[in-house]
Amino acid sequence: MAERIVVINPNCNEQVTAGMSAALEGFRFADGPAIDCRTLAEGPPGIESQILSDQVIGPLCRMIAAEDKAASAFVIACFSDPGLHSARESTDRPVVGIAEAGITTAMNLGQNVGIVSILANSLPRHVRYFRAMGVAHCIAGDLPIDMTVSELADDGKVFRRMSEVGGRLRDENGADVLVMGCAGFSRHRAGLEEALGLPVVDPTQAAVGMALTILRSRSRR
Amino acid sequence: MAERIVVINPNCNEQVTAGMSAALEGFRFADGPAIDCRTLAEGPPGIESQILSDQVIGPLCRMIAAEDKAASAFVIACFSDPGLHSARESTDRPVVGIAEAGITTAMNLGQNVGIVSILANSLPRHVRYFRAMGVAHCIAGDLPIDMTVSELADDGKVFRRMSEVGGRLRDENGADVLVMGCAGFSRHRAGLEEALGLPVVDPTQAAVGMALTILRSRSRR
Amino acid sequence: MAERIVVINPNCNEQVTAGMSAALEGFRFADGPAIDCRTLAEGPPGIESQILSDQVIGPLCRMIAAEDKAASAFVIACFSDPGLHSARESTDRPVVGIAEAGITTAMNLGQNVGIVSILANSLPRHVRYFRAMGVAHCIAGDLPIDMTVSELADDGKVFRRMSEVGGRLRDENGADVLVMGCAGFSRHRAGLEEALGLPVVDPTQAAVGMALTILRSRSRR
Amino acid sequence: MAERIVVINPNCNEQVTAGMSAALEGFRFADGPAIDCRTLAEGPPGIESQILSDQVIGPLCRMIAAEDKAASAFVIACFSDPGLHSARESTDRPVVGIAEAGITTAMNLGQNVGIVSILANSLPRHVRYFRAMGVAHCIAGDLPIDMTVSELADDGKVFRRMSEVGGRLRDENGADVLVMGCAGFSRHRAGLEEALGLPVVDPTQAAVGMALTILRSRSRR
Amino acid sequence: MAERIVVINPNCNEQVTAGMSAALEGFRFADGPAIDCRTLAEGPPGIESQILSDQVIGPLCRMIAAEDKAASAFVIACFSDPGLHSARESTDRPVVGIAEAGITTAMNLGQNVGIVSILANSLPRHVRYFRAMGVAHCIAGDLPIDMTVSELADDGKVFRRMSEVGGRLRDENGADVLVMGCAGFSRHRAGLEEALGLPVVDPTQAAVGMALTILRSRSRR
Amino acid sequence: MAERIVVINPNCNEQVTAGMSAALEGFRFADGPAIDCRTLAEGPPGIESQILSDQVIGPLCRMIAAEDKAASAFVIACFSDPGLHSARESTDRPVVGIAEAGITTAMNLGQNVGIVSILANSLPRHVRYFRAMGVAHCIAGDLPIDMTVSELADDGKVFRRMSEVGGRLRDENGADVLVMGCAGFSRHRAGLEEALGLPVVDPTQAAVGMALTILRSRSRR
Repeated sequence: MAERIVVINPNCNEQVTAGMSAALEGFRFADGPAIDCRTLAEGPPGIESQILSDQVIGPLCRMIAAEDKAASAFVIACFSDPGLHSARESTDRPVVGIAEAGITTAMNLGQNVGIVSILANSLPRHVRYFRAMGVAHCIAGDLPIDMTVSELADDGKVFRRMSEVGGRLRDENGADVLVMGCAGFSRHRAGLEEALGLPVVDPTQAAVGMALTILRSRSRR
Repeated sequence: MAERIVVINPNCNEQVTAGMSAALEGFRFADGPAIDCRTLAEGPPGIESQILSDQVIGPLCRMIAAEDKAASAFVIACFSDPGLHSARESTDRPVVGIAEAGITTAMNLGQNVGIVSILANSLPRHVRYFRAMGVAHCIAGDLPIDMTVSELADDGKVFRRMSEVGGRLRDENGADVLVMGCAGFSRHRAGLEEALGLPVVDPTQAAVGMALTILRSRSRR
Repeated sequence: MAERIVVINPNCNEQVTAGMSAALEGFRFADGPAIDCRTLAEGPPGIESQILSDQVIGPLCRMIAAEDKAASAFVIACFSDPGLHSARESTDRPVVGIAEAGITTAMNLGQNVGIVSILANSLPRHVRYFRAMGVAHCIAGDLPIDMTVSELADDGKVFRRMSEVGGRLRDENGADVLVMGCAGFSRHRAGLEEALGLPVVDPTQAAVGMALTILRSRSRR
Repeated sequence: MAERIVVINPNCNEQVTAGMSAALEGFRFADGPAIDCRTLAEGPPGIESQILSDQVIGPLCRMIAAEDKAASAFVIACFSDPGLHSARESTDRPVVGIAEAGITTAMNLGQNVGIVSILANSLPRHVRYFRAMGVAHCIAGDLPIDMTVSELADDGKVFRRMSEVGGRLRDENGADVLVMGCAGFSRHRAGLEEALGLPVVDPTQAAVGMALTILRSRSRR
Repeated sequence: MAERIVVINPNCNEQVTAGMSAALEGFRFADGPAIDCRTLAEGPPGIESQILSDQVIGPLCRMIAAEDKAASAFVIACFSDPGLHSARESTDRPVVGIAEAGITTAMNLGQNVGIVSILANSLPRHVRYFRAMGVAHCIAGDLPIDMTVSELADDGKVFRRMSEVGGRLRDENGADVLVMGCAGFSRHRAGLEEALGLPVVDPTQAAVGMALTILRSRSRR
Repeated sequence: MAERIVVINPNCNEQVTAGMSAALEGFRFADGPAIDCRTLAEGPPGIESQILSDQVIGPLCRMIAAEDKAASAFVIACFSDPGLHSARESTDRPVVGIAEAGITTAMNLGQNVGIVSILANSLPRHVRYFRAMGVAHCIAGDLPIDMTVSELADDGKVFRRMSEVGGRLRDENGADVLVMGCAGFSRHRAGLEEALGLPVVDPTQAAVGMALTILRSRSRR
């Protein structure tokens, strides 16, 4: 079987899935794994609470089981890494979470990681997870852009808010690398990096890179 | 210019360089970056002390400067990550260290990272570095196989000692993922993983994967 | 409405529920809250993996919603604290998890908390959670009795294994207080405390005490 | 002997003792332990320094010895937990400190604990203690209301200052639960909780709840 | 006034005081501060519990007040650093504790500090203090020689037990520097260092050196 | 041989060397070690990057080797502690770094250490080192005065900037002790201490005191 990395967007927003697929173009090699972005139909429009994060675990694991034979590795493309450890128990394939991969990748680019999040009410959920990963003390700050779903459609405004928040993380919190705390921000990575003069990690790219690394470390050509 | 990842073995052992190049075969894609393993002629036969680690920084940075125009990214392939931050100041290309990349990659595969090292006298140097990276509390243990250079030629013995030490890390220290603490162990990765039933990370593979991730995250095809 | 603490056993083992109800007798006061132990019919016989832990979240939150009007507080009586934060979003009543309450209570009885668990494969799940709680560095050790479900029926053997493991936590890991890492061990608390000469915390008792504290801190007689 | 929890206010301010006794009304059950609040006559008017905190240890331990036969558990009701470990050596009864119990209880209500203290010069003493407890990294901030003793008589002003400081802990430090860092603030708990929209812990209530939990975990009705 | 460092042995054992005075000979310079070792007459024969540690605070602070005009700096020469922060509030002179100075000095000699203590029951007291100092994670281990007072008179036996325990700290716990956890061990420092091949810190020497440093940093000749 | 502490200024600025020598006057005793301040001729004018810090290691270790027979101890007088561990491998004499000694000394004077640095771009280098030392969580903040080399000649301006930055560390970051993050600030220590009302540590003084302590702990008069 040819290698294939299945990237699951656990919210039902097809536009987000399309955006991440575009951002992953650089990871598609002629003789490399296929990179397939899938939308979890049962997912909510956005994962903005612990309840929504926990609710997608079931359908997510079912999708993983259904894809298992046709997949080499899985990426869970939501910054809450919903169901990451259940998924790892569900399959022998590697499963990578974008928050875990995004932050550990950022630790190769700077000492103090700043997180640009969407909503303030996600912060306690994030802090639990950063602690669980064992990296909380490397997080310089986690600041939300605090925009509603309707506002998120306004690309210019999203970018301005991300720049403001990223600038605060850099200037007040001492961040020297940023991670975008959402799978739906991919298109702003390059612009933000340029505007702020700091490396900016798109966690979905980081996770696909991590999956590729794990797969290719095992290959014996 | 076509992309090219330059992997520098900062010791002068050509066999080690050849071994890592073979282990990186899976990361060479038809339309991906060239992966070029280079030996630092000025390096010592092995980097077994802080002095030797610090002494290679100068020649390493000169090699990086010399290669800079013809490289897209650099990997420093010694588990002490000698000169990593000097190198980062020497070039605008990404520079990845194998210890940093190996351990952060392992954090995507388990909760408690065990390190299989060569020499006991490297342990205090390692612990300073694990602390500097901010991951010391995720390290379940760092145990040496304690073999002399001449003994290292005996592949069977090396593998037996790595298995013993890895088994202790798993059973007594609770490690659920291992990192091989040397760039020269690549050929034992798969065997060790099978023998111990734990994921085993070859840090050179992890670092090249990390360099690839950073490069391709920036690409706009 | 009279106060009522609903203790949910998220596995379907009625004997475990009966055992914890007996252990909670001391928390039932003439003019205090009713303490009602409920079995989650949809739960598995035991929660021995992340998958099982995540699978009960849905039915658990539905039970909480169903009981909400007739409850003053909830206790989730499984040492993995499954769905704790989803549950907290599901209701305005306080929700207490037995691992969180058991360990924080133990921190009032000693400096180094030892955990007596059932299965070795739960340890990575536990360590993620201890880190998420921010108390990992206060945990002296987490050792399993490693007994199968059928062996768990043999009370004498369970007690002997708990004593052995607790003795190792005390003598080799320096634990000065123990937490029993399972809601089904209540009947061994007093015996273990006497045998080992260390305070032993039954986390279900600790959690009900915590729920009572939260409720009564708000009361205005 | 009927159960009896002796709560010792180690300063000599009878009004503070009366205030905490009123706040404990909800913990007095018809068939539960008596809860007896006692003033340490030898104590200073307030415990505002390490010297004063250390000076009360002797008389406090003497009071504990004198009460020992007639007590089931002790609570030391000063946020410096003066003499907590000496007291634990002085008696076989459980001894609970209000800072230890208040903070560990708060860890069941949120991820980032904010402390509302009285005086700025107590902060270094607090930080030593939060570190000793092993919870310093869960403390979002510790801010003083900085009011003199005479100003503390002005209830309205105290509440306004507590609200301001609590609001800063919530908005600037990310606290999602507050602990009042003084045994004399009980009467403001409910108002503060309502004003700020965060759970607020009165540490004396938390400590009595903890003592009750420890006692009733041992009971065999 | 000529400079004078007052070293207070807070136990009443004159032999211990004489031993530390002898060990401080190297710190007495022709034109340097006098170094005066004093025995606290009110102290117990040994400080082997939190109660005894807390009980000496009063007399210790009184001795400091009495000596204040005739002293330039104070050293509290007991490894529990009893009353260190009360003493600091009692005088404007610098006050140094031997545990704090011993461990921070050891951090200049190695990465992993091993502690050779007398009694097992001191370990929880020590761990609270190491945490309060913020250095707990640099402590490789704290092992007691577990000898009774009468056995401590047997110098040969004390040395053998210290060597055994120090060897375990080195070989099993990875300590690369040791601190002797008692002011009464000075005479064994050099022998232990030679026997074990590790730097060994006598904390009383470290504390007097620290006091000298603080004094002379302020001097303007 | 008479004792002699060799203090090496690894930058080539003779004025800095002269300034530190003056600040060390208080550590020169009639019958104590000579304290000899040496300028590393090969050093750069200032050590303002990781590259410059790493580049001095070679010449520094050569100077240590050249001086070895005529020295009792070495101090590396640059706040980056360049080559500290290489130097320790290069000689059997004790080698002390001013950052390590300055910060561990400050931990004897307060709970929260503030660092007054020169340049913002040194902060990531510092944070790696504070983590490596295991003291990062005791650092209240590290703020730069951000002055160019030419501005540094203006003593009044330097002092004003240090006072401003030190005041922010005290008032906003809660620092209760400061360390001057440069070997060239000695002359401002006393003034800063007076202006801010906090103890201020000159790390070069602290390091010479540490060297003296280590030497004299070994002496047997």
